[in-house]
Amino acid sequence: MKLYKFFIFCIILGLSATDIKAQNLSWEEVEPGIWKAEAGEPEVYDLLSASGAKPRKKALEKMGNVPFPISKKDINVQLVDGETYLRFPLEQEEEVYGFGLNFKTVHQRGRILRLHVDHYGDEDNGRTHAPTPFYVSSKGYGVFINSARYIDVYAGTAVRKDSEHPPVARDRNTDPDWTSRPYSDSVELLVPAKGTEVYIFGGPTPLDAVRRYNLFNGGGPLPPRWGLGFTQRVHRMYSAEDVRQEAKEFEERGYPLDFIGLEPGWQSKSYPGTLEWDEGRFPEPRKFTQEMLDKGIRLNLWINPYISPDAQFAESIEPFTSSHTVWAGLVPDFNTDKGRDIFFSQLGETQVDIGVSGYKIDEVDGYDHWLWPDVATFPSGLTGEQMRQTYGLLVQRYSEDLFEEKNRRTFGLVRASNGGGTSFPYVIYNDYYDHQNFITALINSSYAGVLWTPEVRASETGEEWLRRVQSVVFSPMAMINAWSSETKPWSFDEVEREVKEMFLLRMRMMPYWYSEYAKYHFKGIPPFRAMNLEEGFHSELKKEVKEKNLAKNPYEEAIRQEIKDQYMAGKYLLVAPMFEGQKSREVVLPKGRWYDFYTGDYVGNGEVITVTPGLDNIPVFVKDGGIIPMMTPRMHAPKLGEKVDIEVRHYGEKAGRYMLYDDDGETYDYEDGEYQFREICVKKLENKRFEGSISPPEKNKPNTVGNVSWKFMTQ
Amino acid sequence: MKLYKFFIFCIILGLSATDIKAQNLSWEEVEPGIWKAEAGEPEVYDLLSASGAKPRKKALEKMGNVPFPISKKDINVQLVDGETYLRFPLEQEEEVYGFGLNFKTVHQRGRILRLHVDHYGDEDNGRTHAPTPFYVSSKGYGVFINSARYIDVYAGTAVRKDSEHPPVARDRNTDPDWTSRPYSDSVELLVPAKGTEVYIFGGPTPLDAVRRYNLFNGGGPLPPRWGLGFTQRVHRMYSAEDVRQEAKEFEERGYPLDFIGLEPGWQSKSYPGTLEWDEGRFPEPRKFTQEMLDKGIRLNLWINPYISPDAQFAESIEPFTSSHTVWAGLVPDFNTDKGRDIFFSQLGETQVDIGVSGYKIDEVDGYDHWLWPDVATFPSGLTGEQMRQTYGLLVQRYSEDLFEEKNRRTFGLVRASNGGGTSFPYVIYNDYYDHQNFITALINSSYAGVLWTPEVRASETGEEWLRRVQSVVFSPMAMINAWSSETKPWSFDEVEREVKEMFLLRMRMMPYWYSEYAKYHFKGIPPFRAMNLEEGFHSELKKEVKEKNLAKNPYEEAIRQEIKDQYMAGKYLLVAPMFEGQKSREVVLPKGRWYDFYTGDYVGNGEVITVTPGLDNIPVFVKDGGIIPMMTPRMHAPKLGEKVDIEVRHYGEKAGRYMLYDDDGETYDYEDGEYQFREICVKKLENKRFEGSISPPEKNKPNTVGNVSWKFMTQ
Repeated sequence: MKLYKFFIFCIILGLSATDIKAQNLSWEEVEPGIWKAEAGEPEVYDLLSASGAKPRKKALEKMGNVPFPISKKDINVQLVDGETYLRFPLEQEEEVYGFGLNFKTVHQRGRILRLHVDHYGDEDNGRTHAPTPFYVSSKGYGVFINSARYIDVYAGTAVRKDSEHPPVARDRNTDPDWTSRPYSDSVELLVPAKGTEVYIFGGPTPLDAVRRYNLFNGGGPLPPRWGLGFTQRVHRMYSAEDVRQEAKEFEERGYPLDFIGLEPGWQSKSYPGTLEWDEGRFPEPRKFTQEMLDKGIRLNLWINPYISPDAQFAESIEPFTSSHTVWAGLVPDFNTDKGRDIFFSQLGETQVDIGVSGYKIDEVDGYDHWLWPDVATFPSGLTGEQMRQTYGLLVQRYSEDLFEEKNRRTFGLVRASNGGGTSFPYVIYNDYYDHQNFITALINSSYAGVLWTPEVRASETGEEWLRRVQSVVFSPMAMINAWSSETKPWSFDEVEREVKEMFLLRMRMMPYWYSEYAKYHFKGIPPFRAMNLEEGFHSELKKEVKEKNLAKNPYEEAIRQEIKDQYMAGKYLLVAPMFEGQKSREVVLPKGRWYDFYTGDYVGNGEVITVTPGLDNIPVFVKDGGIIPMMTPRMHAPKLGEKVDIEVRHYGEKAGRYMLYDDDGETYDYEDGEYQFREICVKKLENKRFEGSISPPEKNKPNTVGNVSWKFMTQ
Repeated sequence: MKLYKFFIFCIILGLSATDIKAQNLSWEEVEPGIWKAEAGEPEVYDLLSASGAKPRKKALEKMGNVPFPISKKDINVQLVDGETYLRFPLEQEEEVYGFGLNFKTVHQRGRILRLHVDHYGDEDNGRTHAPTPFYVSSKGYGVFINSARYIDVYAGTAVRKDSEHPPVARDRNTDPDWTSRPYSDSVELLVPAKGTEVYIFGGPTPLDAVRRYNLFNGGGPLPPRWGLGFTQRVHRMYSAEDVRQEAKEFEERGYPLDFIGLEPGWQSKSYPGTLEWDEGRFPEPRKFTQEMLDKGIRLNLWINPYISPDAQFAESIEPFTSSHTVWAGLVPDFNTDKGRDIFFSQLGETQVDIGVSGYKIDEVDGYDHWLWPDVATFPSGLTGEQMRQTYGLLVQRYSEDLFEEKNRRTFGLVRASNGGGTSFPYVIYNDYYDHQNFITALINSSYAGVLWTPEVRASETGEEWLRRVQSVVFSPMAMINAWSSETKPWSFDEVEREVKEMFLLRMRMMPYWYSEYAKYHFKGIPPFRAMNLEEGFHSELKKEVKEKNLAKNPYEEAIRQEIKDQYMAGKYLLVAPMFEGQKSREVVLPKGRWYDFYTGDYVGNGEVITVTPGLDNIPVFVKDGGIIPMMTPRMHAPKLGEKVDIEVRHYGEKAGRYMLYDDDGETYDYEDGEYQFREICVKKLENKRFEGSISPPEKNKPNTVGNVSWKFMTQ
């Protein structure tokens, strides 16, 4: 009766059959240990062209050559229906990390994602602030897809009929080992474009692959010294006078403060904004900015890029804006010369020129309703999707240019980034507020080539306030963003002393943080990073387990679980934050001897320990031989040219070596060689005693180190 | 310093600028009140070609012509970057419904969705079992996008710079009326393909638009009479003997039962399956099936389409399967003749031929991990995306063909459908289990051209069990699917009597349900549908409010809220389910007088009433003049040719008229005219008394009506 349908079908299929074209990639080694290939016809606009990232060639040369890390014949490309299908091999024991700033998971093998710039929506599905299409294998290599499209990722989930390692079909009726997720031997990706560049980053270790990726993207940013101090964001409707008072209160109470963030009310209108100072609240912006600078406090301005019809430049920028508006505000097309120039000139002339130190760039990520739709068109000819994936990169790039032109470093906040954005001096933040997941994001930021702040916004209790402050002290940017809840650092009486101690600790550790950032910039090593990037953490420990009694030693379980609540901070520190309500917690120590940061006491070696630190302490551990340069606590970062005394702490039983970074702390002159690394050595003497030394300063290089004292913590 | 970047950029943009092509659509009236246009170059494979849907031309002719319902000049098409952008106008007061089987929301204006066949993941984001690209406007028209692609929908959220109704920019600093979602005057859609067919369905009412859509897709399915009885699904590892016992227990306890569902264990292997009877559990399938048929009980078989390597036909079908496997099972390409033939021949020859009555077709929706990836390729040349969007349609279509060839109706279950699938005799189900959201899905099914069952699976308490049974009795398929929890209908002693009463009520109402399904088939009226499709519910009630005191009458709020927990069942019934823990609930009555279903008492008119029904009652209300034909309760649906006595109930104070449908109840002969509608009339006499009559049966047409008695409920 329905036979006619069959005939119609045969006709349909004859017409619709899609051309499937397989392609063998041709790999070119573009930098040592970095290979590029072109799948299909790559688009001209991609993540690297949007970001303008330039490789740090010398640093990459130093890393040297390694063999191509995976089997080329197992990399597969198919061009289907105007889209590009990519496949990369996975070995049985291989783990996969990355695919952007995820908040709940670290291990990505077994996950399906669609990489899409967006506000994080409480699910690791690819929608996040920096959905970097880069993954790192536990086997010590990385893969980067340089496409400004929404990429579908099947990370070890898709199973092919022609797989050389096919899973066994099991009978669910009777087989208790049946699983809905049979073994898959590959990462597959769908790039919805006719082609894409693909990059492979060699190791040999996962950290090496991350370093090559970061260096290829220009290395991490080197913040100004003041960027590592504390920042406080003030109420959106504060006037200049209110801000003055706030700064004064910090000073009177003895809380360090390096920069203040002004929220929407500095503008005459916001959402959409005028990008002009409100004449009522800030009648004399130039004078006020200078006055604050004189006190050692910089101003950071909240903006989003959507332009109020009442902005003075609204009419002139209109032709260079999107077809669609955001809250009835114009959306500038930063890929048109004029759109970019008009917008950033406004920032440059009325803000950067008068001394503003940086920006907090909001709402460039989305949450869909808060952005243009994908059907928006742009004068540059780019699509809504391409702009969505790269808008965060563009605002970082061109706003940094404003500061670079003045040879003044900046350090700000942004809500969206992507592959290619590693070098920008911006830290990602959002409106999510789960303390534990903030730490997981901090871990994942090291695989995504971005920085992330677990900012402190509000707390139900003093305990929570303190616990969050402790985490933020051991993070890329020490930010209190509690203007909405009107909580001050000292609001909780019961923990005020502890909070202040933490503020001061951040300041004391500035030489360490600054040196570690320098290593991010010059060597590509993320200052805050996943345990899995730490040698001795993963594979070696597995071996240990086999000889032990699992019932007595929960270690095997510990390494099989995702480690989502502890991380490495700089070369030597392992940080294990406490969360509200916790009285004790487990910490997984990598192989090697570890010491308590506060006391220098030995705590363990390649094992799971339980710590009960009390309220005043965030558990921090130092690797054997660890060296932490510190300074006396201060209210502001050292000024340009100011010399500061250093206290060098040494931990453990091994000798140690540390490269202390130094430059002027404020300009880009380091790019022209105006910096030095000074070698700190701790030698082991007889009787378990130690002796420290520091190499003399290089001549004609910035030198901010005053007296050096020594503290051997483990004696 | 970074000036060179600008230059690079200019070059890039010159190359990448995308061609944006606007198109004026040319509308062709393909059926009365239905217009088609081709945006761009529509693809050959789409939802309608996949489903093979054929319009019910005569019924559409009867509906007659109406003017094109929206302003053609406000329909906008742009072809951008190989994709199709569509825009349709929205008036200020216009509401939008549909976009598939949503579970939490009814009003879709203000939502952003990506229509994607998938298991429902607890969020109305477009991922659902039937993401039908069809929406219905409160202004009385519908729009259907006939594309088998993942479509992005901006339902009144995107705002254009060139809008003729632009929202006002507001200053968030100071304006309390600021909103993150300014007024948008259009529905915009992104179809990721070079073109698509677009259909507009005229009204004048929203229900008319829905009817035209349904009739265009072949009208709703007409289930066999037995499909409206009870169905029980039995434990997956039950043997023929166990099934026999289960049927016997239903009989002994006096619970009606029309078909039994066999879960995976009827097959020798499952997930992936052999689609062969397990010789141990079902040694004589033909004999067993016949034995059950003799008892008036049919068998429905669970399957999914993924083929075990141990299936006898695995080798022969292998060339016609996807590149990727599901649980190591082959994925047949039903768009190849051979793949389709081999697969469905197996079902036909070993199951349908021996009397199996239908299927429950599982896992054709996804949840990603449970399906092929979008990078899968298929021998027919269709993409993973196209197959994902249509696989549910294909399995429904070709499995129904098996039954149609034998001139036997079927009524089964499926986990995925889409636009074009209206006529298939399948009810959608899933693994989600929120009772309230199940009701919301039932409401939305009427906008999606599908049927949905709020099946009963398990309950914590007797109360919950009873409340769920009550809902399922007033739903498209009365299914108990509690094999996993091993709950039997009579498991909760404290509500056993009430549960049984409900079972019997379902059977008594069979003449009503059957007639209402006939109206779905012949007239396109969904048997279970949203309140918003009921005249007098929405706009008229709004007027009422203006004269009333809002503080005393919460009505305005009630109509502004989404009505997500009550629905229309057939022509006359308003059902307001109770949920566990509720002692009372509010019910919004449309304008007109309403009566209690059980007592005939007047309850209200165009107002919000509060009901406190007690455990044994699900609140059901009948429209003034409502006529409900019922029969005596029985254990099975009437057999072919069997006559049944009818009791006609009349409610309210108005005279009434009802079209009672009749046919043989089992074959497709109704498609050749072998059916009749008999007119039931209730006249109003003096003294508030009534008199009923029924038109005589047509000669040579099936007639299953025995004696007719009358019950005037409101006296």
